[in-house]
Amino acid sequence: MRVELITTGSELLLGQIVNTNSAYMASHLNDIGFDVLYQTTVGDNYNRMKKVIENALTRADIVITTGGLGPTQGDITKYVCAEITGKKMVTHEESKKRMYDHFKEKDIPMTENNLRQVLVPDGADVFVNYNGIAPGIVQNYDGKFLINLPGPPREMKNMFDKSLKPFLKDKFGIEHVIYSVVLDTFDIGESFLETEIRDLILKQHNPTLALLVRPSGVIIRITAKANSIEEAKQLIKPVEAEIYSRVGQYIYAIDDEPMENVVGHLLLAKKMTIACAESCTGGLLTSRLTDIAGSSAYVAGSVVSYSNQVKIEQLHVDATVLQEKGAVSEETAKYMAEGIAAIMKTDIGVSVTGIAGPGGGTAEKPVGLVYIAVTGSKGTYVVKNLFSGKREEIKYRTTQKALNMIRLYLEDKSVL
Amino acid sequence: MRVELITTGSELLLGQIVNTNSAYMASHLNDIGFDVLYQTTVGDNYNRMKKVIENALTRADIVITTGGLGPTQGDITKYVCAEITGKKMVTHEESKKRMYDHFKEKDIPMTENNLRQVLVPDGADVFVNYNGIAPGIVQNYDGKFLINLPGPPREMKNMFDKSLKPFLKDKFGIEHVIYSVVLDTFDIGESFLETEIRDLILKQHNPTLALLVRPSGVIIRITAKANSIEEAKQLIKPVEAEIYSRVGQYIYAIDDEPMENVVGHLLLAKKMTIACAESCTGGLLTSRLTDIAGSSAYVAGSVVSYSNQVKIEQLHVDATVLQEKGAVSEETAKYMAEGIAAIMKTDIGVSVTGIAGPGGGTAEKPVGLVYIAVTGSKGTYVVKNLFSGKREEIKYRTTQKALNMIRLYLEDKSVL
Repeated sequence: MRVELITTGSELLLGQIVNTNSAYMASHLNDIGFDVLYQTTVGDNYNRMKKVIENALTRADIVITTGGLGPTQGDITKYVCAEITGKKMVTHEESKKRMYDHFKEKDIPMTENNLRQVLVPDGADVFVNYNGIAPGIVQNYDGKFLINLPGPPREMKNMFDKSLKPFLKDKFGIEHVIYSVVLDTFDIGESFLETEIRDLILKQHNPTLALLVRPSGVIIRITAKANSIEEAKQLIKPVEAEIYSRVGQYIYAIDDEPMENVVGHLLLAKKMTIACAESCTGGLLTSRLTDIAGSSAYVAGSVVSYSNQVKIEQLHVDATVLQEKGAVSEETAKYMAEGIAAIMKTDIGVSVTGIAGPGGGTAEKPVGLVYIAVTGSKGTYVVKNLFSGKREEIKYRTTQKALNMIRLYLEDKSVL
Repeated sequence: MRVELITTGSELLLGQIVNTNSAYMASHLNDIGFDVLYQTTVGDNYNRMKKVIENALTRADIVITTGGLGPTQGDITKYVCAEITGKKMVTHEESKKRMYDHFKEKDIPMTENNLRQVLVPDGADVFVNYNGIAPGIVQNYDGKFLINLPGPPREMKNMFDKSLKPFLKDKFGIEHVIYSVVLDTFDIGESFLETEIRDLILKQHNPTLALLVRPSGVIIRITAKANSIEEAKQLIKPVEAEIYSRVGQYIYAIDDEPMENVVGHLLLAKKMTIACAESCTGGLLTSRLTDIAGSSAYVAGSVVSYSNQVKIEQLHVDATVLQEKGAVSEETAKYMAEGIAAIMKTDIGVSVTGIAGPGGGTAEKPVGLVYIAVTGSKGTYVVKNLFSGKREEIKYRTTQKALNMIRLYLEDKSVL
């Protein structure tokens, strides 16, 4: 079954917001064996939207739109689709009742324009919107399915998972599955990685191999097409093993498990606790560690020491070291890591001190210079880094490197 | 001039990565008066990519592709375009030299597959890639322009700004400008906001008004089309003033200035310093404050107090209060804010304590319950919130609310 995705809305066409809906739908449709061959974005222009949807209906079996189901004047998608299928709009009573309940529950006034949100083409199937008001719409047209989902990602995703996926499986069954395993690497470049496994990339047809550069590092995606997920896994297994044998030391996770999650599992398994002393990352490292549900079991807390005064008073960094070596130095990083572990009585202490820029750099201490220290029962290790990029990129790359150092430390591998 | 954007790459089509390039290019093309009417995404499939590019050349004056210029076997875009224009590939010597210098400077081995990156269609204009290796390519075909940019956003954006924008302005001049002013609101819903200004939305044609829901809040975008930015500003001014007169109290910034930036300017202007005590946000609030260059002038630091022990020992929260009222309570929030301000000797203290979920919720203290306190010379204010969403959404919404409370406090407005 061929699917075409059409994301609507001038805010997308004008680039006022980024299109995350297409990626979500495409990846989940692939997982259940539907091929997405084209994605198109068109604005809230009645005629151009109509042309794009009609064109999609000529080359796809299932056309899914997102956006344009809301209460405002710019929301036209379902009206365009109703004209294509030749239906008139009618109020969907169940959705109308849910809407009234919603506003009563939230105790906010329901403005009259919301009634537009519960209009649907006559005879259409309706998906309930559990995260909002506008229902999803399914029309059967000329043996094909024309489906409208809401634009806000929270509403679209919930409706996609809860209603559309079961609907498609029920209507079409699963012809084949496309199943992927992702190997997440860190500290190795794309071209170097490709050289290491190039023969595999050229040789493989099922599974196929792809390299993708992500902010977190380069990932290796192994994708197999089979009749069942089990069969796909069997196709992938030997290729995965071969890749591990060549570049395994760079692989920190599979299937895009975040580094903070890998570290969290290690800390839980070892029943260890952790605390951070952050300067240039400003709390981002601890924030990532605490993005993981249940992290309160191992994260004691942290001190963000932006000023030297805080470094001295809260982290007990030696004032003379700060004066002689500077805040951005191997020695200060060591003091910070050992200080926070002692103060918060944790098994592991991590520190970050550097220059995120754009200002503050000098010839001998340029923007991007960051010292990261990890301390614990095995002693303290400090790594000097020089990161490139904008302020926020340097902050993120520093946290990714720090998390990887914690991982290596906990796995008893070389941190340096 | 009509522009069509084509983003290539199976990783986009399969939804393995989100397409941020289209939004960036579309918004910047609009700023200089070029209309983007369609955006298409196609995979690394030679024939389908060829069809999409040929189709785009029939309805657009300028076709811009991103992606598929890299060293790997999956990078085919420029070969497809060279077949369309009937050119053979030749090595671009200047780019080749830059590449060798790049690898020498970074002191990493240059693998042979990188030579693919410096091949271009014979006779094409070339854009230097200042953030990478693969150069951009401009071919003049049948009176139209076929342009290839690299896929990695850092490389694409730099090339777009430094090379493509000047190129387009030089070739086509500027027919008209599309200029927008964005009013960023917080703590007001989309349908309520639309009701307040609906007559303006219906009445306005130039400028036009659009409401967009963002994680940070609802934004009002006022867009004018004119012969100059100055003229556009004059068209926008009275509409902007009218909107302010109706819903000004909800507007915290213009043109998507982040809340942390607004707060930073206020702190600088008042020569005040700030420190945070964060529980459920885990450092995200301080990280957002320190995303702003120069924030070291007013951010002293913070304590992330995930454990009660840290709340007591580092923030001097009364142990009996913790026991009787609980960590997530108005009283604890008050202690945390006043504690961190005293400990770090700052003018402003902010605290956050809540339940980010998914676990840890109870009947009387559900997931999403968050107390936020702000303290300073005017006293301490605590606000009780109930946020919805996933763990990371609750963390973000909490920081946005906290930053808004700081803003109101510094602007001498009611925080409650």
